Amino acid sequence: MTNRRFSPCLENIRMSPIVTISEEARRRRIHFEKKGMTFIPFQRGEIDLPTPGFIVEAAYQGMKKGMTKYPKSGGEDFFKEAILTSLERDYDIHDLDPGHVVVTYGGQEALELAFKLFSSGAGFSPCWSCALENFVPYADIDFTLIPLKKDFTVDYDQLGKKLEGKDFFYLNNPHNPTGKVFSPAELERIVEVCTSLGAFVIADEAYEKITYDGLQHHTLAAVPQENIVTVFTFSKTFSMTGWRVGYAVTRNERVARLLKLGNYTQTAGVPTFLQYAAAQALASRDEAERVIENRKREFQCRRDALYQGLASIDRIDVTKPQGAFYIFPDFSRVIPHDCEGPERSRYVYELLMENGIACVYGSCFGDHFEAHVRLSFSATPVAMIAEAVERMQVLFS
Amino acid sequence: MTNRRFSPCLENIRMSPIVTISEEARRRRIHFEKKGMTFIPFQRGEIDLPTPGFIVEAAYQGMKKGMTKYPKSGGEDFFKEAILTSLERDYDIHDLDPGHVVVTYGGQEALELAFKLFSSGAGFSPCWSCALENFVPYADIDFTLIPLKKDFTVDYDQLGKKLEGKDFFYLNNPHNPTGKVFSPAELERIVEVCTSLGAFVIADEAYEKITYDGLQHHTLAAVPQENIVTVFTFSKTFSMTGWRVGYAVTRNERVARLLKLGNYTQTAGVPTFLQYAAAQALASRDEAERVIENRKREFQCRRDALYQGLASIDRIDVTKPQGAFYIFPDFSRVIPHDCEGPERSRYVYELLMENGIACVYGSCFGDHFEAHVRLSFSATPVAMIAEAVERMQVLFS
Repeated sequence: MTNRRFSPCLENIRMSPIVTISEEARRRRIHFEKKGMTFIPFQRGEIDLPTPGFIVEAAYQGMKKGMTKYPKSGGEDFFKEAILTSLERDYDIHDLDPGHVVVTYGGQEALELAFKLFSSGAGFSPCWSCALENFVPYADIDFTLIPLKKDFTVDYDQLGKKLEGKDFFYLNNPHNPTGKVFSPAELERIVEVCTSLGAFVIADEAYEKITYDGLQHHTLAAVPQENIVTVFTFSKTFSMTGWRVGYAVTRNERVARLLKLGNYTQTAGVPTFLQYAAAQALASRDEAERVIENRKREFQCRRDALYQGLASIDRIDVTKPQGAFYIFPDFSRVIPHDCEGPERSRYVYELLMENGIACVYGSCFGDHFEAHVRLSFSATPVAMIAEAVERMQVLFS
Repeated sequence: MTNRRFSPCLENIRMSPIVTISEEARRRRIHFEKKGMTFIPFQRGEIDLPTPGFIVEAAYQGMKKGMTKYPKSGGEDFFKEAILTSLERDYDIHDLDPGHVVVTYGGQEALELAFKLFSSGAGFSPCWSCALENFVPYADIDFTLIPLKKDFTVDYDQLGKKLEGKDFFYLNNPHNPTGKVFSPAELERIVEVCTSLGAFVIADEAYEKITYDGLQHHTLAAVPQENIVTVFTFSKTFSMTGWRVGYAVTRNERVARLLKLGNYTQTAGVPTFLQYAAAQALASRDEAERVIENRKREFQCRRDALYQGLASIDRIDVTKPQGAFYIFPDFSRVIPHDCEGPERSRYVYELLMENGIACVYGSCFGDHFEAHVRLSFSATPVAMIAEAVERMQVLFS
């Protein structure tokens, strides 16, 4: 009994190193604070702003209205209508109907189920760690990483070659961990390559509403093709990470039906009062836009402070994030030449951690960016960012 | 693209016939009500009583306290402690620790993940339809039904023979659709057979708090063995079907770890404010017990009315339910001898539906009880039950 093997789809999942890092950060923080020093959190994609009050009130009203019976799996009609209205308003998409929308537990459940449709796939490296460590083993698929170039642009030759014969391409845009926002021209070409190879696109647009410098996000949900599944979430837009509400949009009705069956089988569906609250978030346009604009303004200040600070340090190579709340600087010129293997991939991480700066080492996001670390500024006020930059100036100048 | 096959684990799921039946019932209901006649709902396991107000208030407090960040997958510590305390109080279980508890989206997610651990299993027929039509294809396992005897007692010879070589046995107690509550002696012998064959037991105890005539439910969570996973839910006990909160208990820490990884991968975890509300439901002992006792009293009145009514009709053979809110009468002596195949399995269902009584036909629960139908009295007041009995007396006397 003790040595029994269970299903590899569960046995092969690794708990995210980001969780381990977060625990390590918690320990170090206590240590730092005891010494009267600030410990600066850059490790998680959790937002330090609360869920807007009007969404909390809507959930409460939903519960009091008795929306506490079995939910409709794949989403209630009223919520799907609210989603379609918001897609029309925000992205000028007019050809979708409720059968193209599947409501899920966060974007996460939609992505997990979408991966499970297939037996092989590919995605850019660096890549969101949960896709690599959770969705891939759980769906038991063969998954290939296609590295972005040094400046995070696309190598289309590589894309075409490595995607051949694969069932799908996973595209996270705006991109975690680089903060890259793919341009309309890039998106068009990526979709073209996928379509010509008969591959699906699983588009993960969790950060759709977090872009900087007035840049617009272009959603693949606007592309009228049946080989695209676009996944959205309320987590980042409305500080609702802990609410677990998201949705997939696809013009492929068979895929939509299978995602709905998966949602039913796994969980029976998302609580109706949570769907009601999320629908209010979409419908209350003015309040929602105010919230989104304020968040963007805050994140942009943080991005500017962090980017400018890192760029001021000669030995750090850094690309300016255009969206999301991550920056992914390259520390190749900092790491000693004789530092190799696992030590190399953790060299900067250890150094920063020792100096009270929590981050995630690059190899958590795939194999090609060991000299990078990810800094998330989702929960780090500007004053703390300035402090972190000062420490790094001392360390790396 | 159009004829592409997706993963069989999703393609092979069938939407539950109970959903189809519910839609059919909705149509028929409108038709009946137009004629000024009552349509009597016996089709679903949804409770017609609201979630107690103190639980709604607790969820609201949780949201306002900011419990809206990423949840801890597998359950927050405070909730696990509340669960352990309630298991100690209700069942005198003292040897469990938080590592033995995994919080999930309803009992459903725990069961779905538990099935997914294995490659083969067995369970009694009749069997909860969701296990057959959803968990089995989704986990892609070989699953064998072992029929209960005519009086819903266990055929241990069959159990031993058919379970041999299987990885697990699925035991739903109190039992849907028969209302049977397995006795301590039966449970002991079932566990003994499973253990001697090296099989796990997946115990689904969704109806733990709904038993009649003062009968006590005996939970397998009390058995100190590592081959048992016991699944509980808040759905039926507290009228929280739409909240999707449940948990698994197992002394097998590897299994607990894998269930937690599955919970993380599928959904990231249950919202903390929902866990907070559910913890309050467990902790507010007096209020909770009052709610549970009132519900039991109501369900017992319904059970008595329905059982006595059916028993008064000579051609219906009916076993008295001891728990849950289902009754599963045998209409063998009603169905004409020349009525065979699919028609036989739907004969009584069609007849009842035509007469404004919604139910579920026996073959939804496996292969051996085609002459039965399931009547759920979870949402049917006594007056309506009396009306249904009168109609059946006319039909079948």
